[in-house]
Order: sequence, then C-alpha cells, then structure tokens
Amino acid sequence: MLILKLSCPDRPGIVAKISSYIASHGGNLLEFNQFTNSLDAKFFARIEMDIDQIDVSMESFIKGFEVLGESLDATWHFRPAPFKVKTAILVTKTTHCLNEILWRAAHGDLPLEITSIIGNREDCKAIAEKEGIPFHYIEMDGDQKAGGFKQIAQILIDEEVELGILARFMQILPDWFCNQFAGKLINIHHSFLPAFIGANPYRQAYDRGVKLIGATCHYVTSDLDAGPIIDQEVKRVLHSHSPQDLMRLGRDCERIALARGIRYHAFDRTIIDGNRAIVFED
Amino acid sequence: MLILKLSCPDRPGIVAKISSYIASHGGNLLEFNQFTNSLDAKFFARIEMDIDQIDVSMESFIKGFEVLGESLDATWHFRPAPFKVKTAILVTKTTHCLNEILWRAAHGDLPLEITSIIGNREDCKAIAEKEGIPFHYIEMDGDQKAGGFKQIAQILIDEEVELGILARFMQILPDWFCNQFAGKLINIHHSFLPAFIGANPYRQAYDRGVKLIGATCHYVTSDLDAGPIIDQEVKRVLHSHSPQDLMRLGRDCERIALARGIRYHAFDRTIIDGNRAIVFED
Amino acid sequence: MLILKLSCPDRPGIVAKISSYIASHGGNLLEFNQFTNSLDAKFFARIEMDIDQIDVSMESFIKGFEVLGESLDATWHFRPAPFKVKTAILVTKTTHCLNEILWRAAHGDLPLEITSIIGNREDCKAIAEKEGIPFHYIEMDGDQKAGGFKQIAQILIDEEVELGILARFMQILPDWFCNQFAGKLINIHHSFLPAFIGANPYRQAYDRGVKLIGATCHYVTSDLDAGPIIDQEVKRVLHSHSPQDLMRLGRDCERIALARGIRYHAFDRTIIDGNRAIVFED
Amino acid sequence: MLILKLSCPDRPGIVAKISSYIASHGGNLLEFNQFTNSLDAKFFARIEMDIDQIDVSMESFIKGFEVLGESLDATWHFRPAPFKVKTAILVTKTTHCLNEILWRAAHGDLPLEITSIIGNREDCKAIAEKEGIPFHYIEMDGDQKAGGFKQIAQILIDEEVELGILARFMQILPDWFCNQFAGKLINIHHSFLPAFIGANPYRQAYDRGVKLIGATCHYVTSDLDAGPIIDQEVKRVLHSHSPQDLMRLGRDCERIALARGIRYHAFDRTIIDGNRAIVFED
Repeated sequence: MLILKLSCPDRPGIVAKISSYIASHGGNLLEFNQFTNSLDAKFFARIEMDIDQIDVSMESFIKGFEVLGESLDATWHFRPAPFKVKTAILVTKTTHCLNEILWRAAHGDLPLEITSIIGNREDCKAIAEKEGIPFHYIEMDGDQKAGGFKQIAQILIDEEVELGILARFMQILPDWFCNQFAGKLINIHHSFLPAFIGANPYRQAYDRGVKLIGATCHYVTSDLDAGPIIDQEVKRVLHSHSPQDLMRLGRDCERIALARGIRYHAFDRTIIDGNRAIVFED
Repeated sequence: MLILKLSCPDRPGIVAKISSYIASHGGNLLEFNQFTNSLDAKFFARIEMDIDQIDVSMESFIKGFEVLGESLDATWHFRPAPFKVKTAILVTKTTHCLNEILWRAAHGDLPLEITSIIGNREDCKAIAEKEGIPFHYIEMDGDQKAGGFKQIAQILIDEEVELGILARFMQILPDWFCNQFAGKLINIHHSFLPAFIGANPYRQAYDRGVKLIGATCHYVTSDLDAGPIIDQEVKRVLHSHSPQDLMRLGRDCERIALARGIRYHAFDRTIIDGNRAIVFED
Repeated sequence: MLILKLSCPDRPGIVAKISSYIASHGGNLLEFNQFTNSLDAKFFARIEMDIDQIDVSMESFIKGFEVLGESLDATWHFRPAPFKVKTAILVTKTTHCLNEILWRAAHGDLPLEITSIIGNREDCKAIAEKEGIPFHYIEMDGDQKAGGFKQIAQILIDEEVELGILARFMQILPDWFCNQFAGKLINIHHSFLPAFIGANPYRQAYDRGVKLIGATCHYVTSDLDAGPIIDQEVKRVLHSHSPQDLMRLGRDCERIALARGIRYHAFDRTIIDGNRAIVFED
Repeated sequence: MLILKLSCPDRPGIVAKISSYIASHGGNLLEFNQFTNSLDAKFFARIEMDIDQIDVSMESFIKGFEVLGESLDATWHFRPAPFKVKTAILVTKTTHCLNEILWRAAHGDLPLEITSIIGNREDCKAIAEKEGIPFHYIEMDGDQKAGGFKQIAQILIDEEVELGILARFMQILPDWFCNQFAGKLINIHHSFLPAFIGANPYRQAYDRGVKLIGATCHYVTSDLDAGPIIDQEVKRVLHSHSPQDLMRLGRDCERIALARGIRYHAFDRTIIDGNRAIVFED
C-alpha cells in the first residue's frame, strides 16, 4: 500500500492525470480524498493505492511520477505502508497526554516509533523508564533555556525524528527552533483556540463563565498558539465547576484532540495551507 | 454545474476513466467523493463538475457517458444544478418537522419545490394555507386506510413528486406503497434506531433510563423502522427529565436529523447500498 | 406552583431556614437547585414549590418571607406559575432566530407573550404580520441612531416588556440603554465567545481554520460581547466548508443556543453573578 | 467533609427536616442535590456537608440521624471524605478500559484502592505487574466456569471489595453472583444500549448502518445488558468506517463512559431506582 499526498494550483484534468498514471501501471485506488479551494484556486489530494500488481518496482513508480508532478507545479510526497513515524515527545510535569500517546502507540492506534521522551522536569522520567524509552532531562530554567533548545534540536537530528509532540511542554519555543522543524512539531493547547491564548486558560475560562471548554491540537509556528489547527474537542461545563474541575474535564479534551491530531498527521492526512490545515479525516 | 452519482463493481482504473472522460471534454472537477467498500468490492462516487467550458452540449456530454457507464456495469445519474426537487410532505398532528422543512426551503437551505402537504388529520392545514401550499386532507381511519394510500399515491404521481417526506406521519405504510416509491420516501423516527422501534419511543426511553435520546432519518422500506439510515442526532438527558421533557428535547433532534437527511438526499449525496446508506456529507 | 430565586452571602443553615419556612406553611418542594460558590462565599438557589395546600394566601406567603430574606441579606424573587413573560424581539435582516422564537412560543416551549417585533430594516415585517404581531420599523442609520434607541426604549416601557431579545439585531447598543434594561436583554452572538468578538465572526473562523464553530447566548452589558454567558452551542466543521457553509451551519447553533438561553431566563433558571451566569439547567 | 445519600417516599418537609438536623449541629451544606420523581412520589437526595464545626462527634452525628431517617421511611448512607473505594477489576483480553482506570486512579481522578485485577485470560497480567497490583488468573473455560465464579466471589469477599468493575470482562455472570453483589458491579457494554444487545455489537452496528456508535456503563443485574444505566457516550461514524474502525472509535466511548460511571458511583452520586439510575452529575 502506498500513500500519495499532493498539492498544486488548480486546473482542469488533475484528477484524470494522476489517476491515469496510477491505473496505467496497474495500481488500484483504495481511497481518494480531494479538496479544491475555490477561493484561491488550489488543489489538494491524498490517495491510498494498492500497488501489489503494479508493473514496475515501487521505486520506479515513485520516480516516474516526477514528470507529472512537475508539470502540475505540485508539491508531493509518497509514503509506503505500513510504517512507523520516528517520534520524540516533549513534556514538563503533567502525564496524561504522554500516557495517552504511549498507550495508543503500544495498542497500534498510532503508527509511532517513540525514540525518546524529553523533559525539562523529571516528573515523567519514571513513566519513560517503565516503558523502556530513553528519557532526556534537559535543564531549561533561566539562562539554560537557549542551550536547552540547542540540546533538544541535536537530539531530534541525531534520532532522525520526523515528529516532535509537545505533550503539555510548558516552554515557549524560540523562532529558530520552530522554523528548523516547521511542519514537524505538534502542540496541544488547553483551550479551544483562538479563545484564551496564553497562560492558564482554564482559569481564564472560569473567569469568563463559558459553558464549553476545549482543547486544540495544532502545528507549531513561531507565532505562539496561532499555528494551523488540526483538531479541536470541547466539553460542556456548568457554573458549579471550579477551575480545578475545568482542568480535570479539560484533560479528556486534550487527550482526545491530541491523539486524533497525531493520527491524522502520522497517516499523512494533513496538508498545511498557509495558516489552515487541510485534514482528510478517517 | 453538473452532479454525477455512480456505483459499480470495483476494479482498477474507474477513477481514471471517469475523470478522463470529464477532462477530455473540458469539464473541471469541483468536488470528488469516492468510497470503495472492500468488504464486497463495490465502488461508489459522487462528482460535482463545472461544465461551463465543455466542448459539447450538456445533453451530448451526458449521452456520451453511456458507453463508459455501461462498460463499468454502473448505475449512474446526472443532475444539472441549480435545481429544485418536487416534494410532498406527509403529516399527522405535530408541526415541528413540517415547520422546519418549510423554513429551510424558504431560506434556501433545502432545494425543494413543495407541491403539497398531505395530512390524515387537519392540524397542519392552517400552516399550509399560511404558506400558500395546497393541503390534501386524506381520511385514513379504519376502513379508509387502504383507499387513503391509493389517493396519496395518485397525488404523488400527478404532481410528479420526486421525494415524499414523512414528517411525523403516524401511519404504517403498506408494502406496495413502499415498493412503488422505493428510494423516494424519507422518514424521521423519534429514537436513535435500532433502539426503541415501534410506538412511543420516548416513553420506552424513559422506562429504560437511557442517558441519551435521539432521532433517526432513514429511507422507508417495507420493513418498518429498518430502512437505510441517512442521519442520526442525539442529546444528553438526565434522570430528572420526564417523558414529556424527552419529547420536548427530542423534537430538536428530529428537526436537525430530518433536515440534514433531506439535504443529503436532495443534493444527491446519498447512495443506497442494501440496508446501508452511503452519505457523502457536506 | 411558585418559583423562588434567591442569592445571599453563604452561611450555615440557609437551606434549613428557607425550606422550614416553606414547610411550616404546608408548601412542598418540587425542585431544589442550589449552588454555593466557595471561591467568594456566595449562596444561590432556585426552588419550585407546590403551594396548593398552603395555610395562607399566596400574597401572605410571599410577604411573610421578607423577614427571613432580609435576615439573610438576600436578593430574591417569587414568580407564580404558569406565566407568560412580556417580550419584544429586536431584528435586522435575518429571520432564522426570529422564526425559531415564534415557533417555540406558539408551541409552548417558551412561555413568552410577544408584544412586538422591532426592526431597523423591514425584512422581518412580513413574518410579523403573518403571525399577527405588531412590527415597529425604527430608522437607525447614521444620525437617526440615537433617536432610534430612544424610540425603542419607549416601546419597551410602554409595553411593560420584561425581556428584550436581540435576535441578530446588528446594532451596537448605547451604554444608557444597556444600563436601563440591565438583566433584561439577551443577545445571540454568532461565535463561541470569547473567540471572534466583533464583526463577521464566521469569516474570522474560516480564516483561522478552526474545526469547531459556535454561537453564544448572553446577557447584554455595555461591554460589547462580554456579558454573562447563558448558553453556548458548537458544531464540527471541515476544511472544505466555505465561509458561506459556516454561516449555514452556524445558524443551527444560533437557533439552539438562543432558544435554550431564553428558556432558562424565562423560567427563572438564571442568576447573574458579576460577569458569570448561574444556570440551573432543565 | 461528609456525604449523605438518601431516598424515601415523598412528603412535604423532607428537605426542611434534613437540613435543619444538619444546621442544628453546626454542619454547613456544600452541595445539595435533590430529585423528586412525581410519577411515583419518591424523593432522592445527595448532600455534601462541611462538618468541621459540628458540636458532636461525627459518629454521634451519624447515629443521631437515625431517628429522623426512620421517621421518613428512608434508606440512607453516610460516607466521610476523603476516602478510597476498595475495588477489583475483572478483565479478559482487552486492555484499554483497564489502562484508563489505572491511570485515573493513579492521577487522583477516581478515588479507588485497587486491591486486585482478576482475569480469565493472562493478557492483562503484565500490566498488573507493572503497576504492582496482584493479578488473579482464574480458569473459566467450559466446566471451570461455575468454579471460577466461586473463586472470584471469594476474592471479592476476602479483600472486602466494595466495587467490582467489569472492564470488558467477556463472561456472562450467573444469577447468584449478580444478586450477591447487587449494586456493587459496574459493566461497560460496547454499544449505546438498548441497541445491539449481546455479542459483537460493533459488527451489528456496521451491518445496520448506524451513523452513531456508543458505549454504555451500567450496573450489573441478572438480566443481561439490562441493568440501570449510569452513563452513555456516542461518537459519529461514517459509511467509510469498517467494523474495525468502529471498534477503534468505540474504544474511546468505552473509556470515557466507564470512567464517568465509576466516578459517579465512587462519589456516591448514583442511586438505583428500580431499573433506572438517578445520577447527580458533577
């Protein structure tokens, strides 16, 4: 099985050309998701195809697509399945998002190979050890922050990490770090963005008296809490819920939204389009 | 704009053939929805295309598709847009579903031309008159039931109705009627089927102590409450809700599920596949 | 049946004193909702009681409560049921919220006596006339705005209106107006506040790429879009939804959130507590 | 802090008597939940009270309530807080519900002391060992079933277990077992009951083509899948979801519904009323 993700300027005949290329080599479409943004004439697609019967090698099939891809001015990416995405998880103190990812990866819900857990506190170390995953403690307080991010960047490079998950990692990332790993960092924010940007969103939500709280899974950009949103989850709350209750109820939103966001990303179901994310849900 | 709905046995190259036909005449795909049921190797698709620039007349374009359609052993249907679906609404006493449809049709949410409202009670007559829509009162009590359905069938035929909506029409339909208008009748059932089949589902739900109530919009078949489901909606309830409260809260589920179901059907977003409905949501 | 709404500083024995007063006169509690805000030691309650068997007149029963109420430093309000709340609906162009209120009031879901519909455009006039409700057209463009609000205030006073509903009334209210009718004006904002304050929230939501849109029903205060929230409703959306789709889907959120908010208010299920609303849901 | 749970025949003055008893000894109500079922004149209440300032010992306070309780023909129960509920978890092969409970108990969301994990398969043994919780493997295939349930009953008795959680325990319980531990066993069923009773509900749901799947947390009675429902959770699904997808998506419903149901039970927020459960949500 092979996954193709592609975006290009819209024009007549794109689907015909792509699907004809696949069919001409004996591939069979399993799932075809397409979206045309008519506001700015862009075309996006994700295709799952069965290539068991193709008449060339997979490498040749992928290589041969280049002529078509370039003629469409497209950006594209092929991924053979099954696969595991090399992933590092960044944490501070709280454990619920980390536990959720570990459980789902172990269970097969998320196709991740977790190469390491990186923490600026040691609270999650015991969990990492229990699972047999290397834990890197990075000191980031005060003056050590800049150096800490360099260390993290080095770990991500050394381990050839394709995905970094900020699982309630309570540090503001420097611009150079966001840019170096653009499109490869996913964060979970504990509010339904764009409401309650910044610190302590559950307290903000309590003070505002909202009747719904939520969580937002998004790509990290240098503009804090403003990256493309992958998924959101909300939950109804009552006047009787204290800020602590909101935190408790919100944890479920965070776990669900983060798990779905990671799944969409890992299965190549997302395409970043400026400040928005195309998400072909499953 | 032209909508194509198609189903056929799955095989490699279907998408390529269809999209190439469209592209070869200068059509442009706007939205392409596809589903392959791998359990029984069936292919389903719905395609919206822009045909402003095609090189033949629309009639020739549609006619020319026959060769391809037949080679795929396909069932297909073209619908030029914009359009209005000729619709009759069947009612008994309650008004909320009728009102919802009338409001949405008037507002442009639902592309319906409502040719008549048919009731076996006169409760909805005043609403029909206020809207200037013909109201047919059909007596259906006791012995008059069989004759009543013949009258209704005649109205649907005379008015060339494409869609009959059972908007809380409290009559069990005879088999011949279901069969004659197969795929053209939509019902709203006031429970989340298959729970609480039959009469008085809100009372059943209260007695069972469920924490969620719902409504189900489905195609009518001769097997009561068992037709293909188009949409469902649920709402959380509490122990403190009486059967009357469940009816009140359930009305909102009924209105929403029915309105969505009608919309999906009217825009050719549904394909019946045995006892299931493929629904390409919008 | 009698409804009592009360708030006071918290102290031991409040429930005992109130319920003993009711029991001592032969009243029977049907529903008792209570909330103690431990963050600032405030007590809130709503009580439904059966007074068919009380040993004094209802007037004496209510009058006799004064001694207790004052000893608790309480603010309280009694309302005999059944009742109808005198209501004016303010509109501009869009009709869906107006239609929802009219349908629910006619159906008995909302205990409202709608005394008039007030519009700064004439788009809703035909609906008012069809329902036999007086329509007041108030010119509010440019220089006429200040005078327009004076006219509206006069109508609300003349008709002894207890509740003014801003059913997509697209005008910013002057401070004096908000203050004069404080706690008596309910607005529906077409976003899940506090996200997307201000104009064109659906366009803002599209540009931000959120995966959930919503609507917020709140009390009007002089601080625009910042009044106490009564209810909110959200709906999941996709990248493929255009700003127009968001408007269409959002209308359902607006109708539901506004209808629930009005119901809670009309049945005395809300108590304003600073910038938050206590809502005893039903 | 003390929790009182009580039910009795309805009559005027119950709240006054109970709250006066508490106030007379210097207790302060923190949360008062009450429900009167007017259909059969039953009164139910749950009260959280602060007893730091009471004028007698807690034992005397509880003992002294007996006179009042008996005069009301009530059933009641006091529970001092904080507390831990002694709990055994019964499992077969699947791990997601077990993991959810373990995580929430460790995190403080659920006030449980897990005394043992009991399995009729060894799949969950490694998880138990990792957490340092005793694992009892009970053979229950074929002839060993009757003896197996006797062993389990003995474990529950020996460990003074107050709550047994069937966390996807795939065995039908004998009547004597259900009766012996009536009101102390909670099950998670993988459908929104009463739909899809019995085996393989996700396959049933797929075949029926429902648009919502769900899970139901309920008390166990000898009538399979028919005990009082504590909580339910649903999730929207599409025609494109295979039976395997429904299982994957359903797991999230199961985890959430089970966790909430356990929480309500453990915090004495449930009262069984025939075949329905009163649930004072938090």
